[in-house]
Amino acid sequence: MSTATNSNNTATNFNSKATNIVWHDAAVTPAERQDKLGNKPCILWYTGLSGSGKSTVANAVDRMLHDRGYATYLLDGDNVRHGLNKDLGFSDADRVENIRRIAEVSRLFNDAGLIVSTAFISPFMSDRDSARALIGDDFIEIFVDTPLEECEKRDPKGLYKKARAGEISNFTGIDSPYEAPGAPEMHVQTQGKSIEEVAKQIVDYLIAQNYIK
Amino acid sequence: MSTATNSNNTATNFNSKATNIVWHDAAVTPAERQDKLGNKPCILWYTGLSGSGKSTVANAVDRMLHDRGYATYLLDGDNVRHGLNKDLGFSDADRVENIRRIAEVSRLFNDAGLIVSTAFISPFMSDRDSARALIGDDFIEIFVDTPLEECEKRDPKGLYKKARAGEISNFTGIDSPYEAPGAPEMHVQTQGKSIEEVAKQIVDYLIAQNYIK
Repeated sequence: MSTATNSNNTATNFNSKATNIVWHDAAVTPAERQDKLGNKPCILWYTGLSGSGKSTVANAVDRMLHDRGYATYLLDGDNVRHGLNKDLGFSDADRVENIRRIAEVSRLFNDAGLIVSTAFISPFMSDRDSARALIGDDFIEIFVDTPLEECEKRDPKGLYKKARAGEISNFTGIDSPYEAPGAPEMHVQTQGKSIEEVAKQIVDYLIAQNYIK
Repeated sequence: MSTATNSNNTATNFNSKATNIVWHDAAVTPAERQDKLGNKPCILWYTGLSGSGKSTVANAVDRMLHDRGYATYLLDGDNVRHGLNKDLGFSDADRVENIRRIAEVSRLFNDAGLIVSTAFISPFMSDRDSARALIGDDFIEIFVDTPLEECEKRDPKGLYKKARAGEISNFTGIDSPYEAPGAPEMHVQTQGKSIEEVAKQIVDYLIAQNYIK
């Protein structure tokens, strides 16, 4: 091939004498990343009240998947609210933007081939539906269904106590609604169960759905 | 242990009869993720003019790393500008926010154990320095140094032509400055070199710095 006939390709070809003129197309594909990591990527979108056990279950599942050799990542308040989303407050607009960014970042992690979990209250159906629309088929909504009275009894961070005392407002379950999922892919209950039992249920679902082996 | 003495832990222990009360601490650690993936995570922050070859080099390096068995991910205009950062324009504030989010997302990928590359012009030193400050020691700035006249000759997207014709403004190198890195970890030149040659230089650096083997 002459240089002239390939003038459109010069940007991908520093050395006009090189023959590999389509190097740019050598980008690693999502399929290749999946092959390497051995799983089908998906998003485990945990939703539930504060204290319902979302984070605990998500960590337990993440641990099980890691121990089985899969590459995973868990997005939660600790690594998102203080970093990427630290500019966001709790207004309606900010809440929507918070979920949008989490969904977009999840999508990037999926594109990289990982199984990603998100553990946020995400109380509004419309927000979760937006995330689902953005992500598509591999969005797995997991409703961690623990009754309010039980969550309030656990109150791991003392937030219910503060909400009841009026020290914090717009607290989900107290003075802000939690819209339970209508048709989540998984509906798990935590009362009277061991964490391992609940986590195993989710891992079994992933096997049944061919995300992992 | 009695239930009473562990009342602070009940949130991580659905079944009060279970003995494993610190399950929450079983979260997979960054060190465990790294062990699994076999590399030390880092961020390859490519910077250079439009048409300099950033994306081409980044893809070539990504391919080499993938072929050597490493888990990697490349953030670029294609997967970031149309997704996570689609709400941002090109004002000063948006430009800063664009880079901040890219750095924060890179940090999440690093936390997940991956080697992440970013291929954006990122023309301003202050923005790159902010990203470096956020990420720390594993920030590897790679200056893809291709002279403006060469970039303009390549003009892979026809943008220089439009900028010269006044059809687009604030175009880096034409009517907006590019601030070259003062002390980048790597300074690569693309003119008269093959893409493979340049990519190999970067892979060799990662080996020398013990990020990969």
